Amino acid sequence: MHLIMGIHAITEVLLYAPHRFIRVLTAMPKAEGRKSELIELCMKKNIPVAIASFDALTKMAGSDSHQSFVAEIKDREFLALKDFLLQEHSLVLMLDQIFDPQNFGALLRSAECFGADAAIFSKNRGSDLSPVVAKASCGASELLTLIRVANLAEAVSQFQEAGFEAVAALLNPQAKSLSQFHFPQKTLLIVGSEGEGIQPLIQKRANHAVYIPMQGKIQSLNVAQATATLLYAYTAQKG
Amino acid sequence: MHLIMGIHAITEVLLYAPHRFIRVLTAMPKAEGRKSELIELCMKKNIPVAIASFDALTKMAGSDSHQSFVAEIKDREFLALKDFLLQEHSLVLMLDQIFDPQNFGALLRSAECFGADAAIFSKNRGSDLSPVVAKASCGASELLTLIRVANLAEAVSQFQEAGFEAVAALLNPQAKSLSQFHFPQKTLLIVGSEGEGIQPLIQKRANHAVYIPMQGKIQSLNVAQATATLLYAYTAQKG
Repeated sequence: MHLIMGIHAITEVLLYAPHRFIRVLTAMPKAEGRKSELIELCMKKNIPVAIASFDALTKMAGSDSHQSFVAEIKDREFLALKDFLLQEHSLVLMLDQIFDPQNFGALLRSAECFGADAAIFSKNRGSDLSPVVAKASCGASELLTLIRVANLAEAVSQFQEAGFEAVAALLNPQAKSLSQFHFPQKTLLIVGSEGEGIQPLIQKRANHAVYIPMQGKIQSLNVAQATATLLYAYTAQKG
Repeated sequence: MHLIMGIHAITEVLLYAPHRFIRVLTAMPKAEGRKSELIELCMKKNIPVAIASFDALTKMAGSDSHQSFVAEIKDREFLALKDFLLQEHSLVLMLDQIFDPQNFGALLRSAECFGADAAIFSKNRGSDLSPVVAKASCGASELLTLIRVANLAEAVSQFQEAGFEAVAALLNPQAKSLSQFHFPQKTLLIVGSEGEGIQPLIQKRANHAVYIPMQGKIQSLNVAQATATLLYAYTAQKG
């Protein structure tokens, strides 16, 4: 069992994976608008709703940004990489060294929105799942296929053996501008954090490096915005 | 005079607009890595650096996410819309009802990165500038041309009279998929908040509506990611 929080995130998971819910806890300070809609949705889906104080929710979730709603959710399964690679897939997002839970969640949200088949990450090299991540992901943390591995560099090789090409989002002398880049049919898109970037070992194993052409003075978008742009460009090409 | 905060934001503004600095205040808890680099940069640019406690900086900035650095900056000029429209421009981002300062900052950052000529907003209908916005914008709040008006709907008409077409990012029956959309040569791109959207009066005045095609269950990106995608698509077309 684990926790997710926030009105939008809980609503999305209720809509698409109601069987995962154990119960919803709410402080219901003013049950109006989106809040009462969420309680009605719980009733409709036969999810038990219990009352708890705002502070109790904060303690449970480890954050006060729960918007008076925390849900207890059955643990999801992580897919083993070898099982995932037995199936036919075309787009996977690899998160390397994304330690900021807001960015981590935003990246899962983009991956879900743009129809990526899975996201892969290492909890040793970045954020792990948490209520903050679930909220920032708008529930995508519960809806997207997730693969959690010990060693991302090894995973890159396994993807390559399965016919994927690894595309690292980074600026190096070999990098191609996104506007001239043609994504491989089976793309493992690798993104790193703003501070740490992508591990050198993973950079070396990548088949391609791609950058987003910038025209201003500030030379980089944040990783969540950059990744949304890259995923859009992939989907626009593969249509 | 106003304040900006955060290592990255202060560094960017120091690099591109050092004349705007009055002084930098730092708590310097451990002046290593990027922190000592920033102090060295201040020395090089002849910017006075003063020491203050971490808590004093928090009180000044109204936020504890200053990373031990707050800078006093000379107020920027806001450009009057009529003066802006006398010049030749092609891409302007309009922020409608963006109340979240993190999103507001992220949008300014995207606008700057993708070479938008200006961002226009109404402080009555969204966030105003603040140290939190400056940090989230990575300094773009100080580097990008900003236009602040009382009435955004009227501003849309003024842009249209000057030859711009207004493109609203929204889902309505007339909206076109971004993958099929051709941006007008002079584009006023209008984005709204996730909760509030774009004001109906502004939606009505828009020449075009465009949406980003989604393939997952969650039907929308956050506004910062969506806007980065839209701005990229504009620059990719106009190349």
